[in-house]
Formats: sequence, structure tokens, C-alpha cells
Amino acid sequence: MQKKTFALGVDLGGTSIKTGVVDKSGKILDQISVDSKASKGPPAVIQQIIFTIQHFMGKYGEPKCMGIGIGAPGVVSVEEGLVKHPPNFAKWEEVALAKAVRKATTLPIFVENDANVAAIAEAKYGVGIEHKDFLFVIWGSGVGGGIIFDRKIFRGPSGGAGEIGHVTIDYNGPVCNCGNRGCIEAYIGQRYLSERTKEILESQPEDATLSKIIRLAEGNLNKIDPYLISMAAEQGDPIAREVFEEAGKLLGYALASVLNILDLRIVVMGGGVSAAPQYVYMEMETSLCSRILKPNRAAVHIVRSRLGNSAGMIGAASLVM
Amino acid sequence: MQKKTFALGVDLGGTSIKTGVVDKSGKILDQISVDSKASKGPPAVIQQIIFTIQHFMGKYGEPKCMGIGIGAPGVVSVEEGLVKHPPNFAKWEEVALAKAVRKATTLPIFVENDANVAAIAEAKYGVGIEHKDFLFVIWGSGVGGGIIFDRKIFRGPSGGAGEIGHVTIDYNGPVCNCGNRGCIEAYIGQRYLSERTKEILESQPEDATLSKIIRLAEGNLNKIDPYLISMAAEQGDPIAREVFEEAGKLLGYALASVLNILDLRIVVMGGGVSAAPQYVYMEMETSLCSRILKPNRAAVHIVRSRLGNSAGMIGAASLVM
Repeated sequence: MQKKTFALGVDLGGTSIKTGVVDKSGKILDQISVDSKASKGPPAVIQQIIFTIQHFMGKYGEPKCMGIGIGAPGVVSVEEGLVKHPPNFAKWEEVALAKAVRKATTLPIFVENDANVAAIAEAKYGVGIEHKDFLFVIWGSGVGGGIIFDRKIFRGPSGGAGEIGHVTIDYNGPVCNCGNRGCIEAYIGQRYLSERTKEILESQPEDATLSKIIRLAEGNLNKIDPYLISMAAEQGDPIAREVFEEAGKLLGYALASVLNILDLRIVVMGGGVSAAPQYVYMEMETSLCSRILKPNRAAVHIVRSRLGNSAGMIGAASLVM
Repeated sequence: MQKKTFALGVDLGGTSIKTGVVDKSGKILDQISVDSKASKGPPAVIQQIIFTIQHFMGKYGEPKCMGIGIGAPGVVSVEEGLVKHPPNFAKWEEVALAKAVRKATTLPIFVENDANVAAIAEAKYGVGIEHKDFLFVIWGSGVGGGIIFDRKIFRGPSGGAGEIGHVTIDYNGPVCNCGNRGCIEAYIGQRYLSERTKEILESQPEDATLSKIIRLAEGNLNKIDPYLISMAAEQGDPIAREVFEEAGKLLGYALASVLNILDLRIVVMGGGVSAAPQYVYMEMETSLCSRILKPNRAAVHIVRSRLGNSAGMIGAASLVM
């Protein structure tokens, strides 16, 4: 019998599917990225996932693979391998993803929520080396989270724990996608950051002409998104800086509530926007420390994810191991 | 050898110490209440606790007792039996309570936070009979909480989980005792409810003369506290009703954030103010349901503590069992 040396980790995203060959030490040995075809409906997406799996089975041989882990957006029912309502996926209500993929392979298959998967990867192979308890935050188009206690994921009674994007910071605040008011996601999610930036640019037309944001967007304000603002911020653009500092401060307020409830001190930032400049982290930490219960302040620390964009693949693979 | 038939549960409060003889089914067989002497410093308080213990040891005999559990306010370090900074206790920084009480008895002694103890009692002998996962809320002079997962208390990495009184509902809100702004406790804790009521009474002098609150307070506005407001509310006083409805609505907003993070649906209300009229519960449930994530709404339910004021003693005793 051949020795099993790797697991496959599938990171299912709204734009692309990234699948990695991951060894027992959490190292990515090989990887592939394909269009997720999210707008085409579940069968097309599943076909793409299976394509990446068969690609590596052909290349390395199924007998050497321990199994397949999949990190998926939306609400995931771990036991049944169900994925419900992933945002940005068309015609996707409730899909038995594990069952569908199992038709293409005899290997064991595990499915877990994408934020949890990334948190698991950090706990096993990243920041978790120093910290056994932390809140993992994904700041991208929305705001999500995963809770790590004693280096293990904390799912809550029905797998939905860690929905930190829907923590309220002002009960009279703006309406969020979820229907609630004043959720932190309604302040710092992709849509808000882009709109806030446009607002400032439009209210200060003299500055706007000099703005690096507008240059990066080639004059088209509708092209503005958090990644573009982030690039402008790195190039020293003052409006980008203002938007991000404000966002960081507000996120700090939300984190204070969460850390107080969960008895945590360490925050690990992942997701696209977490690549923001250091001054954003300083704003976050300052506002968090000003709001968290006093006895906990000294130990508070916000750090960047150590695995970055690979956390999804590594964490998914580690579901198998 | 005599059969061990009961445990002692000590409920240490700022005003009184209630100690109960509790059997294995969670029934209180006998109880005593003494002044806690909280203003006299730790040695006086400890002496009072020991007095209640010796009272029952004399009455029933130490050999029949399984041990002693103590529920204490403040931050409790369960392993060491330490109690830190209990509010309303003079000259009390950090006291090794278990060690101090152990000098008076050879029985095993356990110490736990008072909110956690009450939550444990509900989980074992109260609402927990139907619900295995819930948030226990103590609404009294402040707002505290205990988290029950799978009928067990969830303490967090260092025993501080469940500090729901310091969840922010408005980051620009009023300053709380903890130094933060807009904590739910700063809206619905004893001080706020009393001040809010006084404000309304003073702004509506013609209603004030008819107010049941003023009659209950014998004309002295400084006598107004939540229990008095609660009594007036039960008698149909409209100002008391207004204050409580507003408080219930705001608490619902805070609970939405907490339930979203913890993946919980059931809230159990304990503490003095939880005896408020049913319309307060309706306000709470309505605002909570309007704010919690949609898929969780149908299962949301707020219920009253079933053990009431006895939860502290029963839960403390059950630490032993």
C-alpha cells in the first residue's frame, strides 16, 4: 500500500476555486486556481471543484491522498456536508456539496465554513503557534469571523458562531444587508467603504482631481473598491487614509464587544482588506483598547494573519488531517 | 459511614449572604440569610460565610454534607478559589476565598462567579430541562450573563466569558462604569433606569403628581430604584411602563449581537429586574427578533428564570455535586 502523503484543500470563493496539495506540516506543495462559475448555478460550480480534484488525482495518484477538505462560504452544516445560501452564488439555496463531490471520488470529504477553515489554518500552522485562543476576523467584501479556543474551532450549538459582521455598533445606524441596523459590516464592508470614499471625493472636488484613488480607478468612481482604496492608501493618498482609519476605529469598537463576551484578547486579521497599512491596525488597537474591559487591556493584541490567502486551502486540507 | 445527602450553596451578595441546604435533586431543604457586612472588609464577610456554614454543620452534621459551593460577584478564578474586585464590597481587591473558608471545615470548597452559578442552576434544574444551549442574563443593579452550551457553563479561556453588560449598542452612547461608551449596562443598569425615570417625572410635572412611582417613593425622588419602578409598572403606572419598555427594547438590541456571535437562540432572564411585567419581555423579544440574523429568528425565545432568587444557592451547591 502506498503511503498517504497529502490532503487536498479546496477554497471555494465567489470568483475562483483554489485547490492545493497540502502536506502534513501544512505546506502547499502544488496548487491550481479555476473560475468558480458562481453565476452558472450549483452543478457548474461542483463540476469545477471536481475538475481541480481530478487534476491532482491524475498528477499524484488517489492512493497517496488522505482526503479532501472544502471551505465554503455561507452557512455550512458540517455533519451533513450541506452548504446553504452562500452569498454571490446564483441559484444556490441548499446544496449537499459533500455528497455531490463524493460521486467523483472514493476519498473522505469534509466541508466547513470558509471563515472557520481559515481560522483553523491559523490555529494549526500560523499565529496559533504562539496563541492558543483568538478571534479570527475576515475583513473582505463583508466581515466574518472564526473563534479559536485552545487551538480548536468553536462552532457553537449549530455551527453559526463567530458572526461578528453582524455585531451592532449603533442601534440607530445604517441598514445592513442582513436587515439589522448598525452592524459593523454596514460600516466597513466593501459597499460602505467604496461609497464613503466616493462621497468624500465628490464633496471635495479640488482634492479629488489630485486623488490617487481616481487615478487608480481611471476616472471611473464606480470602479472604486476596498482593494483599490488600499493601494491608494499605501501610496499615501490622504482620502484613502481617512476612510481606512475611520473603518479601523469602528472595527475596534465592535471587537471590544466580541472580546468581552468571549473572554478573548488576541485578534488575527485575515481577508483582503487585512493587508491595509499599519496605521489602520494602530487605529483598531487604540479603539479596541479604549473600549475593552480594563483588566483585559494589557494583553490585547491585533496581528495579521500569517498564512494570508493560503489559509483557506491549508485549513480545508487540515480538516482531513 | 453516614450517607452524604446534601451540599451547601452559598450565595454571596452585596447586601446578604444566603446559604442553602440543597439535596441531589436541586431542592432547597433549609436556608438561612445573614447580613453580608460588605462594607466592613473581607475578614468580616468571610466570618459571616463561615457562620452560616457552621450553623448547618451543627444542625445536620458535617459527615452528611458533600461539600460547599460559593457563588461570588466579581472576577472569580475557579482553580484557585480567588475572588477579585467584587462591586459593592469595601477593601476587597483579591481574596483567596476558598482558602479562607477551608480553615473552618475539612469539606471540599468550590468558588464560581455568581452569574455563572445561577446559569448552572438553570441548566441543571430549571429551563435547561427543555433547552440545552442558552444565554443566561442577570438584570439587576447591573447586567451580567452566563453562557450555557450543552447544559455546561462556558467560561472562556480565563473565566471571564459572558460579560454581556459591556456589549456596546451605540459607540457614541453614554459613558458606562467600565469606562467604555454605550454599553447596554449604561442604558438599563440600576443607575440609568432610576435617572431616566426621574428625568421624565421632572419634565412632566402634571403627570408626576399622579405618578404611582412618586407615591411609592413617598415623594423622595432619590428613593427611586428599579424594584420600585417595577412595582409601579405592575400597578399600571404609564411612566414606569415607558421606562421599562424602552429598556427592554435596548436590551433586545444587545442580545441580538450576543446571540449572533454565540450561535444561540434562547435567553433566560434572571436577576431582580427580570420580574418585570410581560410587556417588557414582549418588547425585548420584538427588538431581538428584528435584529438577529434571519435564519435564527424563528427559534428565538426569551423566558424567565425558573428558579428565581434561589438559583444562586442551588447553583453554588451544584458545583459540589
